[in-house]
This record gives sequence, C-alpha cells and structure tokens, in this order.
Amino acid sequence: MTLGAGKALLDRAALTLCFQLLCFVGSLHAFKTQLFGRHGGFFHSPEIPVSYETFYLDQKIDHFGFVEDGTFKQRYLVADKQWRSPGGPILFYTGNEGDITWFCNNTGFMWDVAEELGAMLVFAEHRYYGESMPFGADSFSDSKHLNYLTAEQALADFAILIQNVKLSRAGAQHSPVIAIGGSYGGMLAAWFRMKYPNVVIGALASSAPIWQFSGMVPCGDFYKVVTQDFAKSGSNCDTNIRASWGAINNLSATASGLEWLSEEFSLCAPLKTDKDMLDFKSWLQETWVNLAMVDYPYKAEFLQPLPRWPIQVACKYLALDSSVSDEQLLHGVSQAAKVYYNYTGSSACLNTSETATGSLGVLGWDYQACTEMVMPMCTDGVRDMFEPGEWNFQAYSDECHAMFDVRPRADWMGVLFGGKEIASHSNIIFSNGGLDPWSSGGVTHNVSESLVSIMIPDGAHHLDLRYANDLDPPSVREARKLELSYFWKWIRQAAKKHQRVAKSG
Amino acid sequence: MTLGAGKALLDRAALTLCFQLLCFVGSLHAFKTQLFGRHGGFFHSPEIPVSYETFYLDQKIDHFGFVEDGTFKQRYLVADKQWRSPGGPILFYTGNEGDITWFCNNTGFMWDVAEELGAMLVFAEHRYYGESMPFGADSFSDSKHLNYLTAEQALADFAILIQNVKLSRAGAQHSPVIAIGGSYGGMLAAWFRMKYPNVVIGALASSAPIWQFSGMVPCGDFYKVVTQDFAKSGSNCDTNIRASWGAINNLSATASGLEWLSEEFSLCAPLKTDKDMLDFKSWLQETWVNLAMVDYPYKAEFLQPLPRWPIQVACKYLALDSSVSDEQLLHGVSQAAKVYYNYTGSSACLNTSETATGSLGVLGWDYQACTEMVMPMCTDGVRDMFEPGEWNFQAYSDECHAMFDVRPRADWMGVLFGGKEIASHSNIIFSNGGLDPWSSGGVTHNVSESLVSIMIPDGAHHLDLRYANDLDPPSVREARKLELSYFWKWIRQAAKKHQRVAKSG
Repeated sequence: MTLGAGKALLDRAALTLCFQLLCFVGSLHAFKTQLFGRHGGFFHSPEIPVSYETFYLDQKIDHFGFVEDGTFKQRYLVADKQWRSPGGPILFYTGNEGDITWFCNNTGFMWDVAEELGAMLVFAEHRYYGESMPFGADSFSDSKHLNYLTAEQALADFAILIQNVKLSRAGAQHSPVIAIGGSYGGMLAAWFRMKYPNVVIGALASSAPIWQFSGMVPCGDFYKVVTQDFAKSGSNCDTNIRASWGAINNLSATASGLEWLSEEFSLCAPLKTDKDMLDFKSWLQETWVNLAMVDYPYKAEFLQPLPRWPIQVACKYLALDSSVSDEQLLHGVSQAAKVYYNYTGSSACLNTSETATGSLGVLGWDYQACTEMVMPMCTDGVRDMFEPGEWNFQAYSDECHAMFDVRPRADWMGVLFGGKEIASHSNIIFSNGGLDPWSSGGVTHNVSESLVSIMIPDGAHHLDLRYANDLDPPSVREARKLELSYFWKWIRQAAKKHQRVAKSG
Repeated sequence: MTLGAGKALLDRAALTLCFQLLCFVGSLHAFKTQLFGRHGGFFHSPEIPVSYETFYLDQKIDHFGFVEDGTFKQRYLVADKQWRSPGGPILFYTGNEGDITWFCNNTGFMWDVAEELGAMLVFAEHRYYGESMPFGADSFSDSKHLNYLTAEQALADFAILIQNVKLSRAGAQHSPVIAIGGSYGGMLAAWFRMKYPNVVIGALASSAPIWQFSGMVPCGDFYKVVTQDFAKSGSNCDTNIRASWGAINNLSATASGLEWLSEEFSLCAPLKTDKDMLDFKSWLQETWVNLAMVDYPYKAEFLQPLPRWPIQVACKYLALDSSVSDEQLLHGVSQAAKVYYNYTGSSACLNTSETATGSLGVLGWDYQACTEMVMPMCTDGVRDMFEPGEWNFQAYSDECHAMFDVRPRADWMGVLFGGKEIASHSNIIFSNGGLDPWSSGGVTHNVSESLVSIMIPDGAHHLDLRYANDLDPPSVREARKLELSYFWKWIRQAAKKHQRVAKSG
C-alpha cells in the first residue's frame, strides 16, 4: 500500500472516528425505539423500572441572532417520582447526538441515585436529534437549515429549558440543578457548568474528551489506548492485529485473495475495487475501536450484543504466533471481528458500511464534526496497531466542504471553551475509563480542588453512567460513590448559599 | 396631559434612555474625529501624550454559525511604549458602542497606569461601530445585515483578537490580560471575564449596569438617582424640575404659551404640535439625565463643554420658591438647560433632536436596545422629578418591530449572563459612581471575595476611567488605587499559576 492510500484511509478514519461518539446512537436507535416506544416506557433493567413523562418546550431556533425568529419544539423527559418537593435537586442530562429516550434508558446511574438524592430527573434532547428538529423534515435539507446545529445553541436550549422547568413546577424554583452527560453529552455537561454556572451548580462529565481538539493532545493518543486494550487482553493480540493489515494487503493483490477475504469475513458484498479495500480496512479499524469503547465487564447490548469483556473474547482468536500464514492470521481476525458483529449468531453476512448508519443522528454529528467538533486523529503503526496515517486538516476540510458546503474551524472550540485553561471554573467531575479510547482527550488529572478527575482503570466508555451491575469492578463502584459525594457537597453548598440569600433578602 | 400621553412619552423616553450609554458617542464622535484624525493622534490632556498604532484583524462575521463564512476587518489600537516584554500585562479595552479612537483617548486611567504596570494597552473596536463594519456600507441596510450585532459576537471577537495579539507579538504569549471597560464597555468587560476566564485574568467593569435588565432592579431606580443628584445640588432644585412639567403643560395649552416657550428655550424650531411638546419634554428629560451622568468635579468636555459640577451650576437657576409664576419657573429651567447646551455661548439656538444624532453609532445601539439590551425604565413623579410613566414592553417591542423588523427578548441577557446569580465567577471589579444614574443597575455590593464593588460617592459615569485630575475627589483617587491593587493581585496570581504550569510541564 502506498503512503498516499494510507493517508486517504486515515483521513476517512479520522473523519468517521469523530462520529464514534454517536455510533452508539446511530446503531442502537432503531433497536431501542422498538423496545420502548416513543412516549415513556420501561427499560429492561432487571432492577429498576424506568418511567417518565414526555414534554416539549418552544425554543428559539437562533438564540444568537434576531432575524431568524422561529421556534421549534424541544423534547424533554421528566421523572419526578423520587423528587422531594420543594427544593429537591434536579439531575439534568445534557442530551447528546441522538434520540433522548435512548440516553434516558441507558443512563442507569441517574435512576440508581434518584431516590437517595430525592432528585427529579430531566433528560433534554439535543436540537437536530430525535424529535427535536428546528425545521421539521427540512432540518437536514441543506447547510442553511443546519446552521443552528452547534453546541452553543444546544447549551442555550438547556439553560432556557431549566429556567422553564424551575418556574413552571411548584417547589422547583430553588432546586439546585446538576448537569450530567456522557461522551459528547459529557462535554456539554462540562461546558454547561463553565458557561452557565448560574444555571447548574455542578456537572458530571463522564468520558468527555473536551481536550480532543487541535493542539491539546497528540493526535495519536486515541489509537494508542485502543491498542493498549488489545495488548493487555490476550497474548499477541495487538501484534497480530498490527500484522493483519499487511496480510490483508498481500491477499488483496490477487482476485483469489479478494475472494478468500470476502468469504472468510462473510461479507455481504464481495470485495472488488481498491476503494472496497479502503472501506474494508476502515471498517475493521472501527470495529476494534468500538470494541475498546464497549469493553464492559458484563454482557451488554450497548453497540451490539456482546459477551462480558468482549476484547478478551476476541483476542482468544488472535493468540497466534508469528509463524502463521496470512490466511491463518486473517481467520483469527475474522473470528475476532465476528465477536463484535455476530455474537448472537443471527447475522447472515457482515456489511462493511454498518458502523455508520444513514440515520439523521449520524448526519447531524457529521455536520458538527465538519464545523466545530474537529478532533484530530492519527496513527503511526508503532505506538498503535494500525496502518500509519497522518492527520490532514486540509483534506478533512475539503471533504466537509463537499459534503455540507461548510469549512470546519479547528481552533474555535479551544477559544470558546478555554482549551486546557479551565482552572478558573469550578464544580466539575471529569470521569474517565482507562479502557476508553476517548480518555485520550479527557481531563485525567485534578485541575483544582473542585475540578476533579476520577479515573476508572477497568472502565470503558462512561461505564460509571450505566446501571450498577453485580459484575462491576470495584473502581467503578468507588467512582460512583465519589460522584455522589460531590453531588451532596454541591447541594449543601447551594443550600447554604440559598439560606444566606434568603436571610439577607 | 392625559395619562395615555404620559405613557407614550415615557415609552419613548425609556427607549431613548437606553441609548444614553451611547449618546456619549453619538454626540462626541464628530467632534473627536476632527481633533484626533483617524490613525493615531494626540489627546489634549495636559499631562500625557497619547500615541498608538492602528491595526485590523480579519474576524468571522458569524462566530456562532457556519453558513455565513465571510470576514470583516476589526479595528484595534495598540500602545506598547510602556510594555515590559516579555510577559508584561495587557490592558484590554472592551470597546463599546462607538468609534474606538474616542474610547482610547478618553480612557485616561489606562494611560495613567500603563507605566507602573509595564502594560501594553489594546483598544478593541466593537463590531458595527467606528470602522469595524461587518458588511461595509451595507452593515445597516437592513435587519439581515444587522443580525450579527450582538454582545456575544463582540465577546468572541475580543477573545480571538487577544489570542491573535498574544501569538503574533514576541514576548506576549504569556502576558496576562485584564479587561477594562466603562458603561456598556464595562458590561462587556465583566461578561468577558465571566464567559472567557481563560482569556482574561480579571476585569474592571466601570459604571456597568449589568443588572439594568428585566426583573433585576425596580424600573424607577434610574430616575431616582437623577433626581437625587439635583436634590442635593441646590435648594429646591428637584422640586422645581418636578413642578416644571405642569408649567410646561399649562403654557402649551395656548398658542402664545407655545411661542413663549420656544423663545425662552431659544429653540431652533418653534413648538407647534402635541408631538413637538412630547419631543420637547423628552429632550428636557434627557438633558437632566445627561447632566447627571457627566456631573464631574472639573471642567470637562465629555458630552458637552461643561463647568465643574455642572448640576450645581444649573441648580443655581432653579433655587426658586414655590410662589413663582410658570414663566419665572420656566425661565430658570431654560437657563439651567443652557448650562448643558450652551455653556460656551456658541449655540445660536437649541435643537430638541440634538441628544440623538443620526450617526451609525446611534443606529447600532438602537438595534442592540431592540434585541438584547432591554433595560426597563419608569417614572412615578413622586420618588423622581419626572412625569409619571410606566414601562410598557409591548409598545417598546412594537416600536422595535417597526424600526428593525425584530422583537426584543427581554429575558435573554439574564439567562445568558446569569442575572444576579454571578457569585461563582471571580476577579471582577464593579466600580460605580454615586452620582451616576446607571449605578441603579450596577453591582453595588461585594458579591464575593473576588467579585468586588467599589463605590465612588462623588463620581458620575465612570469617573474612575478618566485621567487623574487635580480636582478629583478623594473617593475616586482611592478607587483607582484599589483597582490598581487588584490588577497587581491578579497579575501575581497569574504569574504563580504560570510558574506552576511551567514547572509541571
């Protein structure tokens, strides 16, 4: 493979990897809506039935300009059965790139702690996702209609929504509000506390890569974490994946090799062209990344139905020594990939375009990645197990321009949200999983007494936000305890402040 | 006069009063540009020659959306003769609604302290004012072109400008930046620290009415302060102004009375219609407000050439007892008004449309007042010396709609900038003059250890930002000393932090 081709692959990978945050959603959306229906429902957790009410708030399409004066209906979900009124706290999920019912049903931590805190739960849908479409069916029709899809607009929606909830519900006026989110939702939770500290008393930003932007962390760190996960999950596991790309390239040089590969991987569409090969390798790369994100300690159905510690299961097929043939190596690779795609044995064939579905959610994140959310990624094949590929902003920008007629602004998020200079803010917990590739862009050290980092060495992507599980490692149990103790601390702070104000007023 | 007419008057007054912040600029703009020219120049302060360089930075027209991808040239002025490089601090003037050279030449405090601090001075022009026109000559052509005239866009300009100054000047990379502004510029300075604490280590917000918005302070407080200024500046002074409206109404009932009024006030255009009378009274009301804002302890030429303590001078003409006739009372009023309009004796006649000139600056603030900057005002004729008039948001909104095809959002500034809930921010000095009507919406008590209020009982509108003067009252001398000591404190904090980061990095 030429360097040019390698670069092109990475360019594409870099672009699509930015969307991993939402691949959660893209893939699961269809699945979940079947389970839960649209207006409330019950999650199939063994312990806790989830029930909520669905509401809609009229929001300005454009908070930052006055010419576009239209409104849209923002969906939000409220569960107040455990709420101690008046004044009980509100846990506010800062919805990310997908249908809010999915986040509602998957953020078990909020449900688990609601009773102890006497908390109302509110889950706010992010504009341009789920049902919260600023221009209805036209929202994605062109870049003009997409113009109001930014994190700043979403934060303004949240601020106005909270104001509305507090004013419209008896007993909620003085309720302290805590922002909670995971992944991009975690970034929003942290940014929300930074920009609207008057609205939320603190934030739990779980697996929130707020430093994954240009110039803040080395572009190769993300894939290094993926590689480490495989390295420690089985003998020779990362080494054999690193070797697999050469084997794939060798086989793809001949028609019979292509045929063999297509059959070995049970591909729905046989590999034929160079582009097919790029797509195939990109898909495989994403598979390893996804496995790293959902390397949970118990059977779960987050991106796909998977066994506990799925990387260990996959790596069993890759415990081969270096003397094996290309075909033997790639047989192991295909078996490992099928742990991810076909654990239940129900897939007749594998589709290499599967990790990026065509749902609105995906398109929305594509647009965000092409405007504000520019997260450089690169690989070198040495510190990581992937083919080398540089970060190429120009190619990325050109791709965005072709796709949406916009150009990304690589530096804007750093200016707007402070980059690594966040020490003057307060009351934010940054929790990160040691197994989660996104920890590469996370805040993994205490910035100040009240900007704290919680590391969960055995945790994948925002494990702490999931329901408690008997198989949870001690590190995540401790993390949740600590998070809860910060919540209590912030709530006590707010109560004291409220008393002072009430006395002096 | 009927109540309806009174209300209409106040509605207009409320609208125009919101623009007082910029009447500074509107009136003085033409005057100043003659004095100083456009690219640098020398201020006629007795002590300190002002010299600076003029630069232009390409800024995005829309920081918060990606469809409008155009740029414009933002003007900024730099004076670095006193700057201690590397690392000396930067004092950054957050330009408000007018030509930045005017603020540069009038913010003597910055020039006075530059040497002691070893500071670089940067004065940033606010978009849509002076030369910083996003769409050139078309910037005010319609509401579509005005859409990017908001405080948020201006703050983003400032953040990007500082990033640029720090990266492009040798020795500036680690320079701590302090935001300084007066009036609306002071609001911007405070908001800048709140929203971009990574960019500025602190802010001096002088005479910044950040609480003048809906629901934060009583709408009548502003005029109460004006009234108090007159009450304490001469015998019966406020009482006679309160009585003057009735006298005016009496005289305006007859043609001869109108003629008498027109002659007595040396009006350029004689009073004829009811509308003329409303305009006349509104103009007179604004005159008293303006006098209150510029009630400085020395001869000055801020809004108009004026004697020292101009209200005391005006009140000499109003020290009449209650037995005087309407004509005698109004003769006193006209003499008092002429202290403001004709102190130098050079005005042949007075123009009742004079306090709101037609310059771009005025139109810009009109638009801001019609969108974000909604500052309710009212009078009751009891606690203040004006004709009673309620705050009427609907009428205000309708007027805005007619003028710009936009509707103001009364609550937005409160949500965006936290309203009275600002305690979680840090390092902001709110200085207020006890004589300044805008102190009604200012932060006049310490909010926390690092959100401090400095009261200057003898100060009018941002007196502390003016050049030191031999006639300055002790209170403003003390205020400036205290401000400087906070600057040093913040600079030391930043230096410590920088050392810590450098050591750990």
